[in-house]
Amino acid sequence: MYKAYAAMSAGAKLEQVDREQVNLDPGQVEIDVSYCGICHSDLSMIDNEWGMSVYPLVAGHEVIGRVSRVGEGVGSALIDKAVGLGWQSGYCGSCKSCHTADENLCASAQGTIVGRDGGFADKVVADVSSVVEIPEGMDLAKIGPLLCGGITVYNPLVQFDVKPTGRVAVIGIGGLGHLGLQFLNAWGCHVTAFTSSDSKRDEALKLGAHDTLNSSDPEALEGAAGRFDFIISTVNVKLDWNAYIGTLAPKGRLHFVGATTEPLDLAVFPLLLGQKSVSASPVGSPSTIRQMLEFAKLHDIAPQVEMFDIDDINKAMQHLKDGKARYRIVLDNTSS
Amino acid sequence: MYKAYAAMSAGAKLEQVDREQVNLDPGQVEIDVSYCGICHSDLSMIDNEWGMSVYPLVAGHEVIGRVSRVGEGVGSALIDKAVGLGWQSGYCGSCKSCHTADENLCASAQGTIVGRDGGFADKVVADVSSVVEIPEGMDLAKIGPLLCGGITVYNPLVQFDVKPTGRVAVIGIGGLGHLGLQFLNAWGCHVTAFTSSDSKRDEALKLGAHDTLNSSDPEALEGAAGRFDFIISTVNVKLDWNAYIGTLAPKGRLHFVGATTEPLDLAVFPLLLGQKSVSASPVGSPSTIRQMLEFAKLHDIAPQVEMFDIDDINKAMQHLKDGKARYRIVLDNTSS
Repeated sequence: MYKAYAAMSAGAKLEQVDREQVNLDPGQVEIDVSYCGICHSDLSMIDNEWGMSVYPLVAGHEVIGRVSRVGEGVGSALIDKAVGLGWQSGYCGSCKSCHTADENLCASAQGTIVGRDGGFADKVVADVSSVVEIPEGMDLAKIGPLLCGGITVYNPLVQFDVKPTGRVAVIGIGGLGHLGLQFLNAWGCHVTAFTSSDSKRDEALKLGAHDTLNSSDPEALEGAAGRFDFIISTVNVKLDWNAYIGTLAPKGRLHFVGATTEPLDLAVFPLLLGQKSVSASPVGSPSTIRQMLEFAKLHDIAPQVEMFDIDDINKAMQHLKDGKARYRIVLDNTSS
Repeated sequence: MYKAYAAMSAGAKLEQVDREQVNLDPGQVEIDVSYCGICHSDLSMIDNEWGMSVYPLVAGHEVIGRVSRVGEGVGSALIDKAVGLGWQSGYCGSCKSCHTADENLCASAQGTIVGRDGGFADKVVADVSSVVEIPEGMDLAKIGPLLCGGITVYNPLVQFDVKPTGRVAVIGIGGLGHLGLQFLNAWGCHVTAFTSSDSKRDEALKLGAHDTLNSSDPEALEGAAGRFDFIISTVNVKLDWNAYIGTLAPKGRLHFVGATTEPLDLAVFPLLLGQKSVSASPVGSPSTIRQMLEFAKLHDIAPQVEMFDIDDINKAMQHLKDGKARYRIVLDNTSS
């Protein structure tokens, strides 16, 4: 038996429940959860915003822990190793995306908290293919948010071959954006933060932005016409996307990692004249997560986190709901 | 003095006018026009659809001819050489796009028929930087349409690194699309033509499509879910773009070379789940035009053209307006 925190119905407060330890399938590992970040999509799943939640629902998909058991076919050398687990906990292993190390695009990828228990618990089970070893010397308490928030903003730099000589910008300086600024700075780029908040302006500069632009000022956007090679949007609200397209240089790209539900009403002519692209992407593959962790270690990149004991999980969720997280919350499961 | 065909006002029939031969600026060449293709954008400019027409307007920007005079700084070796001139007749030469051989994205690129005379004439003047020599042995009468229509569909293959192993599709089998099918077939790709017309179905297969899909059948689109790595749209009408996004494979791209005026109301989530891109581009650089001509020569790729004597230019324009061009019209100026 082990402890987990479950929502019994959509939007419910989380309750402590007991779970039976399961037999592992071949290829699976069990992780003793040390820390688990809270991501906004945990909230979305608890609230069944995407219509795919199954209750009781144990959320949590920014897991850091140590391998406690391994299933058939998994080498025992992994036992006790520090590992991370993100949004995906398994892949089909045989589709084109899996064969090209793009497992995050596998149409049959298993969501860690979709129809199964995630990391708001003492233990979590996943396919070994989705579990990544943490490089020696990283601060395990802090890095959980890299496994979902971090990889989501890091992956596009790899996928779209962002150049260290590029001029880049980040829309939204929150859980994802504050990591994006750090990664892009270390990547060598000239980094601009779009922000409408004065308080975040100074923080953005500390996090790695070389300058900021007031996104609520149409003149500031016009003044930046043709400037950026790559803009990453981490927000999930509708903005004037055509105005942002205007700030792209020829061959520039506006990339979405925040899933806005309103359609992008993009004019074709400005895209055409500048050979511009618009795209979006989800998390990243295990190999890219591995690469990101090494890059983060080398450059001392870490999420800014607020720690809560896992027994205070409902307080932590409320803090996130209130929009107060600066910038990411991590649950500590090491004292219980 | 030489002859040209001009629209004296928006939408007017073309009238024969006399033009004075001008002194060439340094870096310019004068071309004796042998043939000139008619592109739909000639019609748009004659009708002032884009609000940038200056009258009297001499259209024509798919020019094939021989260099008759050269300005200061242009070697006389070019005289009598067969050359082509497309939508752009000059570039600033000093911006980032010009310095990276992306002159077609130069913000100061001079349009061949924007505020100056184009190729519906005995002579046309252009900066030598925009003029491309025609490889020996090509049929000069036919290839004018490559200089605008051809490069518009060829350029994206180069810009977006379309792989010979890719599955690609073309939307719209007309002036641009019939060239797209030929290029993509020779490029090594598996080629699908989206078409709603039975008559064009057989022609598409002859032009290089390996199969066709009925674009007016929603079930056909659904049946092609996740199939294409690259789709190029040559149409300028609004289609159900989200349905086409659904036919893209992971990492696929929907690329526009037809400038639809209605916004693309794209849903973000399908782009995000499959890491898909949407983009657009205009014509191509001189170096890409040069490469395209060599590729077309090697693979016997040529526009299907209908020839009109240049003195029958109004008949030819009417043929285009009536939607009867199969697939491209060329004016012959060699007999006058």
